[in-house]
Amino acid sequence: MTTIGIVGLGLIGGSLGLDLRSRGFQVYGVSRQERTCRIAVEKGIADEAGLSLELLALADIIFICTPIAAIAPTLKQLIPYLSPETIVTDVGSVKTPIVQECSQLWDYFIGSHPMAGTAEQGVEAAQKDLFVNAAYVLTPIETTPTIATQKVEEIAQLLGSKTYTCSPEQHDRAVAWISHLPVMVSAALIDACTSETDARVLELAQQLASSGFRDTSRVGGGNPELGVMMAQYNQENLLRSLSQYRERLDRLIEYIDREDWDKLNNVLESASRSRSDFLS
Amino acid sequence: MTTIGIVGLGLIGGSLGLDLRSRGFQVYGVSRQERTCRIAVEKGIADEAGLSLELLALADIIFICTPIAAIAPTLKQLIPYLSPETIVTDVGSVKTPIVQECSQLWDYFIGSHPMAGTAEQGVEAAQKDLFVNAAYVLTPIETTPTIATQKVEEIAQLLGSKTYTCSPEQHDRAVAWISHLPVMVSAALIDACTSETDARVLELAQQLASSGFRDTSRVGGGNPELGVMMAQYNQENLLRSLSQYRERLDRLIEYIDREDWDKLNNVLESASRSRSDFLS
Repeated sequence: MTTIGIVGLGLIGGSLGLDLRSRGFQVYGVSRQERTCRIAVEKGIADEAGLSLELLALADIIFICTPIAAIAPTLKQLIPYLSPETIVTDVGSVKTPIVQECSQLWDYFIGSHPMAGTAEQGVEAAQKDLFVNAAYVLTPIETTPTIATQKVEEIAQLLGSKTYTCSPEQHDRAVAWISHLPVMVSAALIDACTSETDARVLELAQQLASSGFRDTSRVGGGNPELGVMMAQYNQENLLRSLSQYRERLDRLIEYIDREDWDKLNNVLESASRSRSDFLS
Repeated sequence: MTTIGIVGLGLIGGSLGLDLRSRGFQVYGVSRQERTCRIAVEKGIADEAGLSLELLALADIIFICTPIAAIAPTLKQLIPYLSPETIVTDVGSVKTPIVQECSQLWDYFIGSHPMAGTAEQGVEAAQKDLFVNAAYVLTPIETTPTIATQKVEEIAQLLGSKTYTCSPEQHDRAVAWISHLPVMVSAALIDACTSETDARVLELAQQLASSGFRDTSRVGGGNPELGVMMAQYNQENLLRSLSQYRERLDRLIEYIDREDWDKLNNVLESASRSRSDFLS
């Protein structure tokens, strides 16, 4: 029977634990906080939970579910307790820098990114079936043992996720477009709207904003730390997407400015058609 | 008893008819299409519906619910049938050009904008209670008779809407921010994402896109005709908002480029706080 270790019992780590235990795995959890460990055991996230990484000595597969900055440091601290073929994976939303560092630290490391979440955070937010129908991206590199990729893929499929395999670089470029760029585009929208200097117009804008503004501004109004983290760890790809976005925006502005309604219509029609390719 | 006339029996006109008839008003409807008139009577949108504006000769209040370009021409054709104090209003999503033209054609004209809708169009999409809790903006000018504003406001309140009164110019500046700018920002996002030249990355982006992309791209992937119409009729305000947006976006890009994470964090935090002011 495969034994699972989870470091970091927040939304992702906690939800993983709930689902894996309900599928019969033995789950050991580690958190930096005593309180989180207690809740994790109470909620059925882990069979046992504690503060020391030593608890994971018997795990066959370990999920590092900490914030991005803590992933490689956590792996370093874990190494003394690992058997030579313990598989270690992470759940970070950027892959290139993590995989570069972690695969040098540990042969059986396979980077991954389960693309699930809610607006909530922490162990209290952990829920069953969070990963059902979500994308679960695996990012092996040349040196990654096939068995590591296979084992994590099997587990992702048990969770009900759709698995995808690509290089860390391909992952990071793709999520720059569909996840990190939208955050900046959307934050700039809120930022721009608040710049209105006519108090009555600003008040009206606030009163009249409805579903269109709500949806377009949602991800830009999300967790600032996450936004900064995306920009820090995926800076190059995000800048590349932003630069392309700015060009396309400038083109729209130009069409509106010179009243080229046919060209504006073409862009909007093409956007309307293309959108469905991203939402199949 | 107040008698209501509705020209244009699509989503908005049709939904108005349903609600007003259910509140005991006599409703006469006019459409350019025989089939629409038949459906309108069948669905209970109008007591009587036909192709000729003459049908509205007895109406006390007339709602022009045609596309924006047809509002003033419709009013011109209506005038021969109107009593001197018939109140005429419209439901167009841009107000300044409509109010300018229509208030010169008819003293008892009051511009208005019920901010309700669905993704569907046409008489088949008409539904009860579409206006409940929606904003209903009235845009009287100096010469608008108080009785015209009052009567339309009363009806909007009967429909369950929240009414707001402002000048046509204030309305157009406010909706440029929260309704028209989001469409362009969102369309440029889709447009930029489709520009990825690495086929595998584009495919991954399409496969991995989830709720963040879906929400941020929703209004940009909407009806292209509506988008062009907004730009045509609210060009100046939209360009003003776009120009401000571009400045704010450039600032974000600059912070990311020079790794000024504190400043980026400040913008994202402020966006997160400000968003709730628009969604109360």
